[in-house]
Amino acid sequence: LSDRVSIAIDVMGGDLGLHTILPAAIAALARYSSLHLLLCGKTAEINRYLNSQSLSENFRSRLSVLDAQSVVAMSETAAFAIRHRRDSSMYIALSQVAKGKAQACVSAGNTGALMAMSCLLIKTISGINRPAIVASMPTVKGQTLMLDLGANINCKAENLYQFAVMGSALASGLYGLKKPKIGLLNIGSEENKGLLQVVEAAKLLEAQAGLNYRGFIEGDDVFSGRADVVVCDGFAGNVLLKTSEGLAKFINVKVARNLKKSLFRRILTWFAAPVLQEIREQLDPARRNGAILLGLQGVVVKSHGAATKQGFGCAIDQAVMAVERDLVSIIEGEMQALESLPK
Amino acid sequence: LSDRVSIAIDVMGGDLGLHTILPAAIAALARYSSLHLLLCGKTAEINRYLNSQSLSENFRSRLSVLDAQSVVAMSETAAFAIRHRRDSSMYIALSQVAKGKAQACVSAGNTGALMAMSCLLIKTISGINRPAIVASMPTVKGQTLMLDLGANINCKAENLYQFAVMGSALASGLYGLKKPKIGLLNIGSEENKGLLQVVEAAKLLEAQAGLNYRGFIEGDDVFSGRADVVVCDGFAGNVLLKTSEGLAKFINVKVARNLKKSLFRRILTWFAAPVLQEIREQLDPARRNGAILLGLQGVVVKSHGAATKQGFGCAIDQAVMAVERDLVSIIEGEMQALESLPK
Repeated sequence: LSDRVSIAIDVMGGDLGLHTILPAAIAALARYSSLHLLLCGKTAEINRYLNSQSLSENFRSRLSVLDAQSVVAMSETAAFAIRHRRDSSMYIALSQVAKGKAQACVSAGNTGALMAMSCLLIKTISGINRPAIVASMPTVKGQTLMLDLGANINCKAENLYQFAVMGSALASGLYGLKKPKIGLLNIGSEENKGLLQVVEAAKLLEAQAGLNYRGFIEGDDVFSGRADVVVCDGFAGNVLLKTSEGLAKFINVKVARNLKKSLFRRILTWFAAPVLQEIREQLDPARRNGAILLGLQGVVVKSHGAATKQGFGCAIDQAVMAVERDLVSIIEGEMQALESLPK
Repeated sequence: LSDRVSIAIDVMGGDLGLHTILPAAIAALARYSSLHLLLCGKTAEINRYLNSQSLSENFRSRLSVLDAQSVVAMSETAAFAIRHRRDSSMYIALSQVAKGKAQACVSAGNTGALMAMSCLLIKTISGINRPAIVASMPTVKGQTLMLDLGANINCKAENLYQFAVMGSALASGLYGLKKPKIGLLNIGSEENKGLLQVVEAAKLLEAQAGLNYRGFIEGDDVFSGRADVVVCDGFAGNVLLKTSEGLAKFINVKVARNLKKSLFRRILTWFAAPVLQEIREQLDPARRNGAILLGLQGVVVKSHGAATKQGFGCAIDQAVMAVERDLVSIIEGEMQALESLPK
C-alpha cells in the first residue's frame, strides 16, 4: 500500500466478539504498513484489550477507538435497527465511510441491518437500486463471482440485471477478463423455464450488447466454471453458499470418522489428508471470508458471522483490496459506459 | 415382492434414450421376480431393441409395449405439453397409473410436464394442492428427506405446510421415525427473517401440534442432520440439490488432476481414493437417483434427465419401494390424522 488506507471496524457486530475481531485487526496492521483502523465499539472494553497487549508505538498510532453505546443484535430487523441503533458500532463504523473519515467498513454483524444502514448512510451508485453481496466461489477452472449472496431476498428483473453489470465490471477489474461470461442461476437451462423475474432479467441482459450474457446456469454448473459471473437473488445465492459450506463440514466429519476406524482406514485417511485439505480449504468460508456489499458509493465488507480470527482477517484483506483497486470507480465507470450504449 | 407390481416406463422422455432406459428396465426384471413393466414409446423401436436381446421367456412375459406417437421435449412448457402431447410416451405411461393398469410410473422427462400431467391424470391426495418432488440427502447422522426439489417454483405458505406434512409422514413410513424433526429452509435462523411465505409457513407449522416442527434451517445445516425433513420451495431445493451434485463433480476433477501431478501426489491420491469415493458416492445423483412426486393418488418417480443405466435402475427401485410400502396410503392417513387434530 503506497497511500494511507483507513478502515472502520465494527468491533461489536455479529457473534465473534472483540476477542476474535481485535486480534484479527492487530494482525492486519502487521500485513499492511499504511493501514489505519478505526475501532468502533465500547471504548472501555476495546481499550482494556489493547492495553493488555504489548503493542508497538507504530501499531498504537495506527489504531483509533470510537465509542459506540449499543450493538445491532442478530435477531433485530433492519427497520428496527435503522430506527433504534444509531448509536451502534455498526452505525458509527458506516458513518466513518459516509463522512470520508474511512475508505471502507468491515462488519460481521446483522446482514439486513448492514445493508439498510449502508444504503441510508453511504448511498448506492447512480443506476443501482440495491447493493448486492458478492464473493468468489472455487471452480474447476479457477473461480467465479457470485451475487447476490443474501442482501436481497426478493429481486426484480432490474435488480438482477444491475447485479450482472456490477459482477461483470468486478470480474474485469479484479481478474482482468475482457468480456466476463455472465450466467443467470435458474432451474433448467431452457429459455422459457424458471422464475418469471429471472426469465425477464435474461431478456434485459440479451438486449445489452455491452455484456457477454451466456444464458441460464444451473446449480451444478457453478463449479464447472462455465460462467465468470453467476447472478441470482439473495435467497438462492445464500442457499448455494451455505450448502457449499455445509458440504465442506460434511467432508470434515467423514475424515474425522475415518480416523477413528481401523488402522488401515487411519493410514488411508492420513495419506488422503492433503487432497481433502485442498478441497475443504477451497470451500471453507473462514478462508474465503469477506463478501463485498457491491453497488455502494463506498466499500463495505460483510464478514461471516461465525468467522475465526483468520476469517475476519480475510475480510479486512478484502476491504484493503477493494480500496486499492478502487472498485467503486470501476462499477461507476461500467454503469456509465453501458448507459451510453444503444439498447 | 409377493404380489405382482406393474410399473409403466416412459421410454422416450428425457435425454437418456431407449438404449439407456431399456437395459435398465430389463435389469430390474432380474431384481424383482414379480415385476411387470409397461414400456411406453415408439413400438417399432422398442421391439427392435427387445428382439436384439436374447431375453428369456419369463422376461418377455413380464414386458408389455404400449405405443406412443410423440415425446414431450425438454424445452416444451407444461401448458403446451398438456394441450399437444396427449399421444406422448409420458402421457400414455401416466394414463396407465390413472386407469389402474400400473401402480407406478417412472419418467426421466420434462419435470414441468410430468408434474402437470400427473395432476391432471392421477390427481392429488385430498388436502394436498400441489405435489412435491422428494429425495433423500446424505447427512453426518444418516439422511434427511428434502422437498420440494423442483416441481413448484413458487410456493405459498400452505404449499410449504403440506410439503412438511407429507415429508413427515414419509420419514415415519420409510425410516420408522416416531416424530420426524421438520426444518424450514431459510436464510438466517431468526424468527422474523427470510421469505414472507416461509415465515408464514412457520406459523402454520407451529400451530400444528401433531408435527415436530423445529424452526428454520440454513443450507449448511442440511448436511448436519439437524432435521429429518427439510422443506423448501422448488427453486431453492433444486439449487441446493444441483449445488451438491456440482460439488461432487468438483471433487472428481480435483482427484483426477492430482493423478496427473507428481508421483508423490499420485500415491497420496491413490491412498485417498476410498475416502473420497465414499463422499462422492453419497453425493452422486446417479447412485441416489429417483425422486418421488409426492402427494398424488398414485406413484410417479422422476429420474434425473442425465442419469445412467444404473441411475434409471435406482429410479425403478424407488417406484417398487413406494408401491411396496404403499406411500400413497401413508400420506393419506397422515393428512386425515392431522385434519382431525385441534389446531
